[in-house]
Amino acid sequence: MIEEAGNGLLSRRFFLAGTSVALMAATAGAGGRGQTTLSPGTALSPEGLPDRNEKDNLQRTNISSAPGTSGTGVSRTPLEHLDGIVTPSRLHFERHHSGVPDINPDTHRLVVYGLVDRPLMFDLNRLTRYPMVSRMQFLECAGNSGALTAPTPVEGTCGSLHGLISNSEWGGVPISVLLDEAGVKPTAQWAVADGADSAMMSRSIPLSKLYDDAIVAIYQNGEPIRPSNGYPFRLFLPGWEGNMSVKWLRSIKVTSMPAMTKDETSKYSDLRDDGYADLFTYPMAVKSVITNPSPGLSLYEKGIYQINGLAWSGLGQIKKVEVSADGGKSWAEALLDAHVLDKSVTRFRIAWRWSGGEASLISRAFDSQGAIQPTRSEAMSDRGPGSFYHYNGQQAWRVATDGSVRNVYV
Amino acid sequence: MIEEAGNGLLSRRFFLAGTSVALMAATAGAGGRGQTTLSPGTALSPEGLPDRNEKDNLQRTNISSAPGTSGTGVSRTPLEHLDGIVTPSRLHFERHHSGVPDINPDTHRLVVYGLVDRPLMFDLNRLTRYPMVSRMQFLECAGNSGALTAPTPVEGTCGSLHGLISNSEWGGVPISVLLDEAGVKPTAQWAVADGADSAMMSRSIPLSKLYDDAIVAIYQNGEPIRPSNGYPFRLFLPGWEGNMSVKWLRSIKVTSMPAMTKDETSKYSDLRDDGYADLFTYPMAVKSVITNPSPGLSLYEKGIYQINGLAWSGLGQIKKVEVSADGGKSWAEALLDAHVLDKSVTRFRIAWRWSGGEASLISRAFDSQGAIQPTRSEAMSDRGPGSFYHYNGQQAWRVATDGSVRNVYV
Repeated sequence: MIEEAGNGLLSRRFFLAGTSVALMAATAGAGGRGQTTLSPGTALSPEGLPDRNEKDNLQRTNISSAPGTSGTGVSRTPLEHLDGIVTPSRLHFERHHSGVPDINPDTHRLVVYGLVDRPLMFDLNRLTRYPMVSRMQFLECAGNSGALTAPTPVEGTCGSLHGLISNSEWGGVPISVLLDEAGVKPTAQWAVADGADSAMMSRSIPLSKLYDDAIVAIYQNGEPIRPSNGYPFRLFLPGWEGNMSVKWLRSIKVTSMPAMTKDETSKYSDLRDDGYADLFTYPMAVKSVITNPSPGLSLYEKGIYQINGLAWSGLGQIKKVEVSADGGKSWAEALLDAHVLDKSVTRFRIAWRWSGGEASLISRAFDSQGAIQPTRSEAMSDRGPGSFYHYNGQQAWRVATDGSVRNVYV
Repeated sequence: MIEEAGNGLLSRRFFLAGTSVALMAATAGAGGRGQTTLSPGTALSPEGLPDRNEKDNLQRTNISSAPGTSGTGVSRTPLEHLDGIVTPSRLHFERHHSGVPDINPDTHRLVVYGLVDRPLMFDLNRLTRYPMVSRMQFLECAGNSGALTAPTPVEGTCGSLHGLISNSEWGGVPISVLLDEAGVKPTAQWAVADGADSAMMSRSIPLSKLYDDAIVAIYQNGEPIRPSNGYPFRLFLPGWEGNMSVKWLRSIKVTSMPAMTKDETSKYSDLRDDGYADLFTYPMAVKSVITNPSPGLSLYEKGIYQINGLAWSGLGQIKKVEVSADGGKSWAEALLDAHVLDKSVTRFRIAWRWSGGEASLISRAFDSQGAIQPTRSEAMSDRGPGSFYHYNGQQAWRVATDGSVRNVYV
């Protein structure tokens, strides 16, 4: 058994024989014989739901809304109860600015207008006749992990602290197709996307991004997008802060300048410590978090565990993830699951032998642009008071001798 | 506008301008302004459900059970209402032999025994401490599309005819890890997997497949497998006929010979026209089907549509899909969506100009092993009476002048 880094981190080539966590089978074939074989099970059914034992875990978590509202806030993905890279649509995080509108798909329209030769209007039916693409990609709220900017560590689960990221297969029509059809005028440089919610969420987007990889997303994880994700369709800008992927999209106005809407001035701009603010900080930078072990998922005995988590970058692919079990003093490289995709989360895993002592587990991600996820103090430098968007510092989980896990700053 | 094949199939490089299916916007920005902006929407919530307008479509379809039973049969994925490559777990097809057992995850065990040095027993908790992998891969019932072996075309939707295939991200522990830990004896060649349902579903599997890419699957599409897919865990054999991926797995007995269980002799063997039967026909061969247009999804006006569908092979990756709009006389190559993965479905798409006349739409898939999806008559040759497993012939949909679509043999 080769220790690759301090405090029990094992080699990726670690071989299990002799360090088993299995139970010896007292009688061969004795396990698993149960009552379930004695009578027929339940019927075939129109929908397959989660087991009742998982129900409490498989809920969006840490739901919070502005005072006096029920739909102006967030709900989060319970990352610590999930594995792989798909987020079930039911559990995709929400960030709404004034609740979920109830839209009639038959009458809802998307208009493309402004600096175009021919203003165009689309209904859902017609949009689905255009060329489409589908891709696994993440959506992350600019405010995800913002609690980690607090001066002292906030208690919470992985999902409650970092659950404003979800990963889906998004399918829809490239915006470039619609812009080409409308005929964009030479003076155009920007577009303003507008939602049909009562906050009339509105963001300015450089035309170059719309031509690059933006889509009108109609499908999520194989089925029509659900209302809390923009039904019947939304804008989707791969890798960029979530609020720009305007839900319940109703118009794209092609312009020469950004519109400086309330949603890009009073919010979603980043105050620096020199008193100036960064505006238009679009891509979500390289980041990772260990989802298991994490607060609430205690270790119950000494021995081998599989540390795993998620890594992602809005600027490309994940190249490498390293994990430390000694608070950052030494690092070992984790294995990445098979599907390492552009602007998608990647699942990483590494074997760890818990000695029963204290341990500080940290992950750090490296992306295809050469960027390395910063430490917390690096991520906090330059921030003005109250600035919490775009926090991507390394997360440390402290494992105590009783096996419990909590958020710490190292 | 370049026609690439007969009866309106357009080039993959087809450019839309001038052949718009969009509506002209009478007043710029007029569309999409609706009541939804006038009052706050509904609240943030613990789970995001499909829109009520989609509810009827997003149900498993064509549920059928043996006389006197409610859980011995199948339910199917409504392929025609889905897009992309992920099948939502809620809509994954079912094939149960005696219903869905209600398993207590705390007491359920997996035993690995037989020709091993050390019989081992695992509970769910311990299994999750082992190295895991996750991958997007399909599961297809051996009997999928069997209705197409009928002498005259059966009426039905795409899902009701072909919906015994679904595609998921499956996550779990490689069986090779468990076998290595148990220590397989030199005489071992096979294993027998046993389920905890009351049919005690039982199949023999060559050890080579278990060492190659088989897993004990614990997660599906990011969350714990649901009861109708084998909660708390199942066997998963990528690319092989679905029934071998034994659900509610309770034991793997390592043996020197196949066990010739009822589930591999009275069922899941293929009668040939010479009176002999093929036994152990494991991989699902190369196949494709157009999901849209398809029966129930009528065309409502002449013009451009996007034909799209699914292609897959249990023997590797999809290399190419061709589509015909004239009953197989001429073919054009379709575009494949970004994620072309091993033993996963691949989404294909091609633009088509419907003239308003009759058309017979067909797709045919080519896989990385050089196999080509056969015509119906090729797929029917050699079959004995009543033999319907492993049917992978090309599906033809006839579009009538009123835009309706039905299953035909060409």
